[in-house]
Amino acid sequence: MMPSELVPKFWCNLIFDYPDLYRDITETRSKATKKNNSQMLLKQPLALMKQSHNTTEKNIFIPDEIRDLYLTYRPTRFRRSIQLEKALSTCTQIYYKFEGSNISGSHKLNTAIAQAYYFKKSGIKHIVTSTGAGQWGTAMAYACKLFGLECTIFMVNISLQQKPQRKVLMELYGATVYESPSTKTKLGVNILKKEPSHHGSLAIATGEAIELSQSLENTKFTVGSGETNVLLHQTVIGNEVLNQMEKLNIFPNKVYACVGAGSNFSGISFPLLRYAKEHNKSCDFIAVEPIACPKLTQGIYALDINDFSGTTPSSKMYTLGAQYISPPIHAGGLRYHGTSEFLSALYHNGYIQARAISQKKSLAAGLLFAEHEGILPAPESAYAIAAAIEDIEKNPKVQNTIIINISGHGLFDLTAYEEYKKNTLINDEADDEKIQTSLSQIKEQNLYVNDLL
Amino acid sequence: MMPSELVPKFWCNLIFDYPDLYRDITETRSKATKKNNSQMLLKQPLALMKQSHNTTEKNIFIPDEIRDLYLTYRPTRFRRSIQLEKALSTCTQIYYKFEGSNISGSHKLNTAIAQAYYFKKSGIKHIVTSTGAGQWGTAMAYACKLFGLECTIFMVNISLQQKPQRKVLMELYGATVYESPSTKTKLGVNILKKEPSHHGSLAIATGEAIELSQSLENTKFTVGSGETNVLLHQTVIGNEVLNQMEKLNIFPNKVYACVGAGSNFSGISFPLLRYAKEHNKSCDFIAVEPIACPKLTQGIYALDINDFSGTTPSSKMYTLGAQYISPPIHAGGLRYHGTSEFLSALYHNGYIQARAISQKKSLAAGLLFAEHEGILPAPESAYAIAAAIEDIEKNPKVQNTIIINISGHGLFDLTAYEEYKKNTLINDEADDEKIQTSLSQIKEQNLYVNDLL
Repeated sequence: MMPSELVPKFWCNLIFDYPDLYRDITETRSKATKKNNSQMLLKQPLALMKQSHNTTEKNIFIPDEIRDLYLTYRPTRFRRSIQLEKALSTCTQIYYKFEGSNISGSHKLNTAIAQAYYFKKSGIKHIVTSTGAGQWGTAMAYACKLFGLECTIFMVNISLQQKPQRKVLMELYGATVYESPSTKTKLGVNILKKEPSHHGSLAIATGEAIELSQSLENTKFTVGSGETNVLLHQTVIGNEVLNQMEKLNIFPNKVYACVGAGSNFSGISFPLLRYAKEHNKSCDFIAVEPIACPKLTQGIYALDINDFSGTTPSSKMYTLGAQYISPPIHAGGLRYHGTSEFLSALYHNGYIQARAISQKKSLAAGLLFAEHEGILPAPESAYAIAAAIEDIEKNPKVQNTIIINISGHGLFDLTAYEEYKKNTLINDEADDEKIQTSLSQIKEQNLYVNDLL
Repeated sequence: MMPSELVPKFWCNLIFDYPDLYRDITETRSKATKKNNSQMLLKQPLALMKQSHNTTEKNIFIPDEIRDLYLTYRPTRFRRSIQLEKALSTCTQIYYKFEGSNISGSHKLNTAIAQAYYFKKSGIKHIVTSTGAGQWGTAMAYACKLFGLECTIFMVNISLQQKPQRKVLMELYGATVYESPSTKTKLGVNILKKEPSHHGSLAIATGEAIELSQSLENTKFTVGSGETNVLLHQTVIGNEVLNQMEKLNIFPNKVYACVGAGSNFSGISFPLLRYAKEHNKSCDFIAVEPIACPKLTQGIYALDINDFSGTTPSSKMYTLGAQYISPPIHAGGLRYHGTSEFLSALYHNGYIQARAISQKKSLAAGLLFAEHEGILPAPESAYAIAAAIEDIEKNPKVQNTIIINISGHGLFDLTAYEEYKKNTLINDEADDEKIQTSLSQIKEQNLYVNDLL
């Protein structure tokens, strides 16, 4: 078998498996949209839109042009870490999937290539987007280069300060990069007027990207996570893991992945969730979030806006409120205030679990992994490792088979690890009062789902 | 076939194939050592020493402990770049091997693991070494961590300024890192007295590492390139390529790799050179060096010292003289003044070729590769790509099959690419007068080989 044969030919369309959840999401959205007319639709190309609402096809064919580009960096590493097992003196078999060995340094390229392909086909010339830690921005810059599209990126100020190399890399691929809040949009200008040294958030950067995209011709805004079709594109990870596991004749009983808006977690989990259901296997799917931004473990299930300005349609999701600004931990993507609607529905119905982990514990786990496996995980990915280790340490003699999804590398996050070593990390505990204030705003705005329905 | 089956079980011992060259090298060295008693032997563990002088075994078995660690990052990517072929409108098939997806970011880990294993077995507790751009230092820091050895690294000042992240990464693996010239050795102190802002060289850092290692117990100095056993360890690359090519049923007629001291070039070339010889295939092996440090194309074949202080034994090699300080181009490892003795002998006897390329041309090629293949090559590796493109552009319609060895990634070298884009690269042309002065010093010291024999 050639390695290329392990690369999936289909994405796993999980809304086919759970039509009730999908119906509930869309009905809620539709009622909310009627009630609140300020919502615009995210104007994606038709092919992409359809992918978010396709309840009739179980598997969606990956176009050859996209799969050919996947083949430039896939299959990605799937490996058992016997070294880490030894270090933890555990009977659990630890497998991991590593998505960081492409130019974006993370799983984000899986959807960036797909999106650029569909935007290009629909005649769009220019993509505007927002990025937190920079993996998504790099992925989109590269994908745009591949398809000859212009690319503009708003990068969260605090992340850009932490990782200036990310900007250089995006610019090498021809993208224009602005730090957000910027002076390029009304939203940015207003925020900077109130707080000139505002360190930004993904919601603000998203608001800026939308504003700019609306003012230019042949230009569209796009997102790196959250949308149902983005989750779909990421299922290339889980489908590939199924192929790789089949060769080893194993199936896990625990899967760990970090969760921001949710595409990395969904990417590995959806195909395995389906497989477990169809084959009557018992498996826990654990979405790991930072205590700095505990949307699943402390947020509410409500209709909320995806960007700071409220331009995009609301989604029914687990959220801390778009006004919630997480402490500036070294894990850009995980600072997002909400989790994508389909994933939230799965969580709400008990198909998946959630866990919150501190930054310190997560970086310690990342470093332990780096010492034994020779991969320095992105701080985001380290959260998943930490949760897995937490479970193993509670009960090292249990013979579990687990998979950890390592969404990216941490080579641009050395400052985070350095601060961990020097014990100079910020206090990353979420401020309960801030959370309650933010949540009450959602409720006041009549977006709390129980009020609506 | 599992991917792991592609990972070689043997290193290719090319001195078995060319015993005459080996004899010539050792006889010259022995005569020179008699004539000049200042030379000490590089005191490696016996098993390592034997590997540099084993003329009876064609293939050397890779111990299981080493191969198990190779399996954490091998097989490495071997791929045809159809995208680059299209971009160059060429009929040549372009294959590449990528050694940058391990924690060191380069091929250096292949020998670091092997060396740490043998040092540990021989009872050594502490390794001291020198590093240019930092790949070798990172590799050794990680390998020492794996085997529980202490690790001290002298890093060339100019490289440390260009890539401070490298130091952080080495320190994360528990290594102590000094910038060279340092105040930790007499050699360093003397150099800093004369020139406080000296930007260092690998020869100086090597001299410092040797000096420190000699003053401490259970401590040994080691090197990341040059020694015949280091070249041997790197043949895991070429042996793996042979396995990968067999599956594709191809063999190249041109192989390109950059050359510093020579381990990356040797690693891919030795197994293919043997294969071509045994199967009567015609194939050019092109060692690519910077015009800033043209040891093969402008140096002389002579006995010369490997470190600045002359503590290590002299080698018969192509050299510009250990006094030669290359312009500070962004390609640390390629700034070394000489090329390893066995590789030099192969070059002297016409088995391999050499080419010098400018920094600007090389970074342009690296960027072109990054745009089409999604891998940002280390500036070192970009030299090999540039030479390949130079040949293709001369004659795009020739149907060659070529392999480029991409020794590492350039994620810590973004400044180099940024300067290229902004057109602010330094003038990297070697100063002819400096070269002639340096070469005449070798001749005066009676080390010029023709005077000796």
